[in-house]
Amino acid sequence: MKKVDGLLEEHGRSKIEVYVDWENGNYVPKEVFEAMKPFYLEKGFANPAITHRLGWETYELYVETKEKLVQPLNISPQDFYITHGLTESNNIAIRGVAKANKKRKKIITSSVEHLSIIHSSRYMKSQGYKIEEIPVYSNGTIDLDSLQNMIDEETLLVSVQLANHEIGSIQPLREVIEIVKDKNKETLVHSDMSAAFGRMKINLNELEIDLATFDSSRVLGPKGIGGLYVKEGVHVKPLLEGQLSVETLSPGVEIMPLIAGFAKTIELEFENFDEKIKNLINLRNKLLYGLYTTIPKTLINGAEGEKRIADNVNLSFLGCEGEALTVECSMNGIYTSSGSACSSRILMPSHILTAIGRRPEEAHGSLLMKLSRLNTEEQIKYILETMPKVVSRLRKITGSIEL
Amino acid sequence: MKKVDGLLEEHGRSKIEVYVDWENGNYVPKEVFEAMKPFYLEKGFANPAITHRLGWETYELYVETKEKLVQPLNISPQDFYITHGLTESNNIAIRGVAKANKKRKKIITSSVEHLSIIHSSRYMKSQGYKIEEIPVYSNGTIDLDSLQNMIDEETLLVSVQLANHEIGSIQPLREVIEIVKDKNKETLVHSDMSAAFGRMKINLNELEIDLATFDSSRVLGPKGIGGLYVKEGVHVKPLLEGQLSVETLSPGVEIMPLIAGFAKTIELEFENFDEKIKNLINLRNKLLYGLYTTIPKTLINGAEGEKRIADNVNLSFLGCEGEALTVECSMNGIYTSSGSACSSRILMPSHILTAIGRRPEEAHGSLLMKLSRLNTEEQIKYILETMPKVVSRLRKITGSIEL
Repeated sequence: MKKVDGLLEEHGRSKIEVYVDWENGNYVPKEVFEAMKPFYLEKGFANPAITHRLGWETYELYVETKEKLVQPLNISPQDFYITHGLTESNNIAIRGVAKANKKRKKIITSSVEHLSIIHSSRYMKSQGYKIEEIPVYSNGTIDLDSLQNMIDEETLLVSVQLANHEIGSIQPLREVIEIVKDKNKETLVHSDMSAAFGRMKINLNELEIDLATFDSSRVLGPKGIGGLYVKEGVHVKPLLEGQLSVETLSPGVEIMPLIAGFAKTIELEFENFDEKIKNLINLRNKLLYGLYTTIPKTLINGAEGEKRIADNVNLSFLGCEGEALTVECSMNGIYTSSGSACSSRILMPSHILTAIGRRPEEAHGSLLMKLSRLNTEEQIKYILETMPKVVSRLRKITGSIEL
Repeated sequence: MKKVDGLLEEHGRSKIEVYVDWENGNYVPKEVFEAMKPFYLEKGFANPAITHRLGWETYELYVETKEKLVQPLNISPQDFYITHGLTESNNIAIRGVAKANKKRKKIITSSVEHLSIIHSSRYMKSQGYKIEEIPVYSNGTIDLDSLQNMIDEETLLVSVQLANHEIGSIQPLREVIEIVKDKNKETLVHSDMSAAFGRMKINLNELEIDLATFDSSRVLGPKGIGGLYVKEGVHVKPLLEGQLSVETLSPGVEIMPLIAGFAKTIELEFENFDEKIKNLINLRNKLLYGLYTTIPKTLINGAEGEKRIADNVNLSFLGCEGEALTVECSMNGIYTSSGSACSSRILMPSHILTAIGRRPEEAHGSLLMKLSRLNTEEQIKYILETMPKVVSRLRKITGSIEL
């Protein structure tokens, strides 16, 4: 890799900057930071399981904070378990469920899940489990008939995310649950809701789901904290071994500043929720269809309309390469990511774009822009003005496409 | 449990407050908080593995921060892996080493390890591993002859902490390594150094150890972040499954605010290190021997002199019960913990006090006070004045001891 200093110098810094890479990182709003501050400096820093004044105070603050945190989900705080984030939540949902329910040995997921689900399932395969992946249509939603055929007596768990984190397709979760419980009411249903929470209405009680994953950093909160909803009566075990405190699915003392930040960002997210979502969908449509209609040879990745989550813009610009796109965008102050194999040090091609049938040359030119409540109309305008120049320049350089 | 509100009201609040429960929770010094602040609000919030300006900037900040972080340990940043804290580090040290080295199936630990080591070993036992525990002397240090006899061809790993987190005994780690490598040079040695780091000199390079655990919150840093040192060439695998970013033993995006806080607290801890440790030992001795000599029927738990880590005060007040002690201390503004079974909602009796041969009635009256660089001479004086009254009142109530 080139020395970063040099890269940054050559690169310069755009006058206008627009951050639409909320999938991969976020700063926190000032109010969220202010909510964490006292827990770092002056209160709620004790172990809530310890019997002294500061322990009790911390316990009280913990209970209060957690009540606030689960309020928009309409569930009891007892059914929401704090974890270190979506990776741990998803690991527990697959492997912790298997650990606690040893009779049935088959797990069904979809082919477009987050890598923490895909890799957890592969791990279970190495432990003798049967793993099956539900195929998806070209819009990224799962094939319910395949699911129906996969469920059998042996099926322990079906894990299907609510909205895809990369291409935004919303899965028919209500139907998934109906099909599963109809065929084998013992089979548990888990959903990674981290890419859907805060972008659409979710009423867990009404859904009759068994487990669901949430993450603070996916709703502009601090990294390093998340949760797993577990319906009362569902058996699940922690994956890390150690000393439990008040929380029982992830050992160690409760991380109060992060829990408080998580609760605050949820409070902010759900203020005037309907209006916020309407606004987000409006911005998203302007950006998605604005780019699609003004830049030729462009494909929309993922579902459209009601089936697309409110914050997701993902397009493939044919004849462009992912890393070149993110760098050229960056030079223009637009921060995005790509599902291309070469667009990050991770060097992972997107299994999601492959699953929806994108050919390599289509996946290479993909660009993910995620919006948040912090993005504005002006920013969308700037992206719409800038991207045609970005794409056109790259296409000229590579000469790979006839325009 | 009694409603916490009521408890706090009855309880009142002492005019003088002394926090010596650093083992179980900590606020962070203002400088540590200030070091985290920009990473929450304005910089280094991107994914360091993503190819855009903010990703590269985050990567640079990450590299810089990590170099600072490992500086007092005299190791390369590449050999220090960031984790969510000591629980994850210890789990990886036992289970992640076993996952990556499948040939040998015996693990040796000591009987006084942190529960994350003890429970990780038990987990490996359930997977068919042979687990042996080195017994300890009454001062809490391990029996090296027993260790010598335990090591065989099958031994994958020996895990012995550097200093005990509860009774402060420092283990003869140099001898442990010599004995192990002498008998089987393939056997790996891990040490949980979380209770020793920042309280004594540690030069990992010189020690020739294979793996070592560290935790930010044990040196007044933020919770939720820690590390595992892994000597170059030693094989180990992550335990959580998911998408790796720059760090490779714990999947997920790097949590820069916490990494920055961890680095800052280490910088502060190691300023004028020798003087700080001298001062800590001085305060510790005043408190430990002050209480021991002025309160009758008191036992010192753990080793003394050079063999006791600088911050640890642990005594058993015969005829007292742990929960009553922590509550009565709390009423007087002194915040401590106890190894007694009833002193926390965890309801775990201390396996450590049992291992050093304390009878139940001795373990019940145990009180742990941990000091930090934030404690003062005046605070020690206050504790020394107050504790005789606390113990005497409790002994009168229970009438369990002849004074």
